[in-house]
Amino acid sequence: MRQAGRYMAEYRALRERYSLLEICRTPELAVTVTLQPIRRIEVDAAILFSDLLLPLEPMGLPFDFVRGEGPSVETPIRNEADIERLSVFEPREALAHVLETIRLVRLELANRVPLIGFAGAPFTLASYAIEGGHSSTFALTKHLMYSNPKAWHCLCDKLAVVVAEFLKAQIEAGVQAVQLFDSWVGVLNSADYREFAMPHTRRIFDALNGLGVPTIHFGTGTASILGEMRDAGGDVIGADWRIPLDEAWERIGRDHAIQGNLDPTLLLAPMQRMLTAADEVLARAGGRAGHIFNLGHGILPMTSVEHVQALARHVHQYRL
Amino acid sequence: MRQAGRYMAEYRALRERYSLLEICRTPELAVTVTLQPIRRIEVDAAILFSDLLLPLEPMGLPFDFVRGEGPSVETPIRNEADIERLSVFEPREALAHVLETIRLVRLELANRVPLIGFAGAPFTLASYAIEGGHSSTFALTKHLMYSNPKAWHCLCDKLAVVVAEFLKAQIEAGVQAVQLFDSWVGVLNSADYREFAMPHTRRIFDALNGLGVPTIHFGTGTASILGEMRDAGGDVIGADWRIPLDEAWERIGRDHAIQGNLDPTLLLAPMQRMLTAADEVLARAGGRAGHIFNLGHGILPMTSVEHVQALARHVHQYRL
Repeated sequence: MRQAGRYMAEYRALRERYSLLEICRTPELAVTVTLQPIRRIEVDAAILFSDLLLPLEPMGLPFDFVRGEGPSVETPIRNEADIERLSVFEPREALAHVLETIRLVRLELANRVPLIGFAGAPFTLASYAIEGGHSSTFALTKHLMYSNPKAWHCLCDKLAVVVAEFLKAQIEAGVQAVQLFDSWVGVLNSADYREFAMPHTRRIFDALNGLGVPTIHFGTGTASILGEMRDAGGDVIGADWRIPLDEAWERIGRDHAIQGNLDPTLLLAPMQRMLTAADEVLARAGGRAGHIFNLGHGILPMTSVEHVQALARHVHQYRL
Repeated sequence: MRQAGRYMAEYRALRERYSLLEICRTPELAVTVTLQPIRRIEVDAAILFSDLLLPLEPMGLPFDFVRGEGPSVETPIRNEADIERLSVFEPREALAHVLETIRLVRLELANRVPLIGFAGAPFTLASYAIEGGHSSTFALTKHLMYSNPKAWHCLCDKLAVVVAEFLKAQIEAGVQAVQLFDSWVGVLNSADYREFAMPHTRRIFDALNGLGVPTIHFGTGTASILGEMRDAGGDVIGADWRIPLDEAWERIGRDHAIQGNLDPTLLLAPMQRMLTAADEVLARAGGRAGHIFNLGHGILPMTSVEHVQALARHVHQYRL
């Protein structure tokens, strides 16, 4: 998950002067923000500060973040013609600033901890491109998917090519692991996942095969499609808090690693309840190699830094 | 699910003159809207037109519907004092208009189809009372739940008493089945469900025991807590489209009936894809008694009435 954010005073201070997109697009600022949590929290890896939606603009879909409402795509995709117009661009040019951030972060980190890069998966990116922002029903996304599968697959083909190249470029620039975020794919059942999401996600993981960096495949609300996500690819499969970690690992298979799965709202709880819940996750992992302790989704703005610090320390000290 | 709504021209026509709350609070209008789908669609039951949130106002939490944004509670609950102030009211007085609607609908229906009443479950109602409207993270709800369990249980106790009485009053007024909507409870994992939601939901189902009407227990995103929801109560357990119907029924147990589980966005698909998906649901039910065909969540405003009509006809004609 994104480590930096509004729960940190130093991030809020920077956000008073710069927008989220300005930070993402200015390597010096993105480096500063990437390193903020590393200085404060005992984490085992740094996570590139960036945004899932960055590839949309060079494809021809400019967007911005509206205060309190999240992302807003200026002209969301409505039909086949809109999809045909989208460019498959070269991320080493249009997103060169992200790659520069990676190089600078690696220099700053000097191998103290590895750096994780990321991108959005085709289903999740397509949903933003079609809905224009967050959605609770994904009605427009599924309408296009069901009523014009050809157009849907054309859109996801383009997204998959761009995302695969972007992740390859991130690896060339120095990230030591990559995470593919299919944050909203849990709104699909397994049949629809297989038909509409899996081919495109698989293409991305296939493209990363043999590049020597571990790959993480993340989603939320995915209890019913964990096996399908594993089949689509990724060395590590993420699971959110809705499913007990051992049950999720059973479904994914013990030959894969698992990431998860503390409910981020537990970081708003009294310290002892949070630590007990973390122990429960760790106990279900059973001390097996291949468990990456993490939150089941992003950290909430109202979280206290002290809770995050205590959680990281606690996980490091845990013994079965 | 609610049958009437913006997908019907006759409902939209009425909404040009009256707000959603005006319709809910005026028996003649609520009767008209309850009967609109019965005249157009071959359904096996009528569903009372009402709103989950109606009990909040007489408890001391006035709310309204903001165009395009859903419900908005004027002064959301923030602390223990706010909860202590809430009234446990007599629904036969404060919600007499709903009971009058029920009596009038029963007269109009003259036993052609049965009438289903409903109410919100404590977790879902509490989340509206605390968040003030829809939420994507339920951060404030869980914050109160984790940090002040005593206050949480006090709130849910009050809600459970009110909802149990309200459903009993609906049964006295003539509804022939009741549905308890815990629409958002799928954001809890099974441990949290057992601790924070189940005792209150169980209390409601216990209160309805022996009253001679079937009870339906509904939620979305509940793949991991279907067994817990069954333990909390209900003759019929609802399942959304994220889990295949046969797998859901396995988890619920064959001694219970099941309701579900077509994705409502499939009603936006071309006719043939919608019917094929309905066949898949019916095939997984395997022709067993105890399956109520339904959508996995509410019907979307952009749905065409022709699709709903064709779906109802198709389900009635289905033979394994």
